[in-house]
Amino acid sequence: MADGGHAGGDAGDPLAARVIALLIERGQTVAVAESLTGGLVTATLTTVPGSSAVVRGGVVAYAPEVKSSVLGVPADLLDRCGTVHADVAAAMARGVAARLGATAGLATTGVAGPDPAEGHPVGTVHVAACVGEELRHRELALAGGREQIRRQSVENVLGLLAELLTETPAD
Amino acid sequence: MADGGHAGGDAGDPLAARVIALLIERGQTVAVAESLTGGLVTATLTTVPGSSAVVRGGVVAYAPEVKSSVLGVPADLLDRCGTVHADVAAAMARGVAARLGATAGLATTGVAGPDPAEGHPVGTVHVAACVGEELRHRELALAGGREQIRRQSVENVLGLLAELLTETPAD
Repeated sequence: MADGGHAGGDAGDPLAARVIALLIERGQTVAVAESLTGGLVTATLTTVPGSSAVVRGGVVAYAPEVKSSVLGVPADLLDRCGTVHADVAAAMARGVAARLGATAGLATTGVAGPDPAEGHPVGTVHVAACVGEELRHRELALAGGREQIRRQSVENVLGLLAELLTETPAD
Repeated sequence: MADGGHAGGDAGDPLAARVIALLIERGQTVAVAESLTGGLVTATLTTVPGSSAVVRGGVVAYAPEVKSSVLGVPADLLDRCGTVHADVAAAMARGVAARLGATAGLATTGVAGPDPAEGHPVGTVHVAACVGEELRHRELALAGGREQIRRQSVENVLGLLAELLTETPAD
């Protein structure tokens, strides 16, 4: 599991531990919508003991239909833009927060490889984080193999949430 | 990620690769409902290149309400038995398969620690797998720290699906 940075889980992944501490401090909860990371963002957050106080859960929308049926991403947006798009990442983050009753949402969508998809090269990734009405998005062009791309996507989306939370006044 | 057994993802986790190959051979698709494993089962399955052909996705139901609101686990079952129970694991596996339109479902629920929960000691885990109408369940009493318990739960639930699939005639 997302163990790149920790030795086996006593305190969990360090970046995830920071995000969990920020969520607790600020009275926020989080839900995660994942495509290419396939569960790795939620798995990384939940390496942290006590994360259940603020992690509501997540949806891995690996099949495109799940993005609309479970997360409420508009089907016409998917038809028009495909799944690897800033607006899709934003709709996934907002959708999962609404669906799971969290105050913050995270999303990842992109191409982990080994093959390009929908005309995008391997390593094209969109990550998004929302806290209340605030939303932040980042487009990434990642290098490396499938697992490296997935892990870097996890780090980026957790980093994005950490940024957004540090700019959000604590309750 | 669930990297106990592989070196960085060219072919993915070996047990996951075996499960993906069995699903492809048998014309099945899978969806995953996770509690204590927090996304690690789905993340492990999706280490395998090409897994998107058979992995529909998953729901991490870390908060108990998400088990009923998203997965359709009956609220009275949760009230009566808590979340660490064979029938809850079974309802999660069937629920996620139905919700995400997969022919097979997997579920994990239990106590990763560091503290006991709902009167169950750390390491009490229920895993379930269903393929069509067939359902298999296993109760585990796992030793080790939080991450070891989560990883052993992943191996057990994937092993359970592999067993069930090898006994299911290929299409």
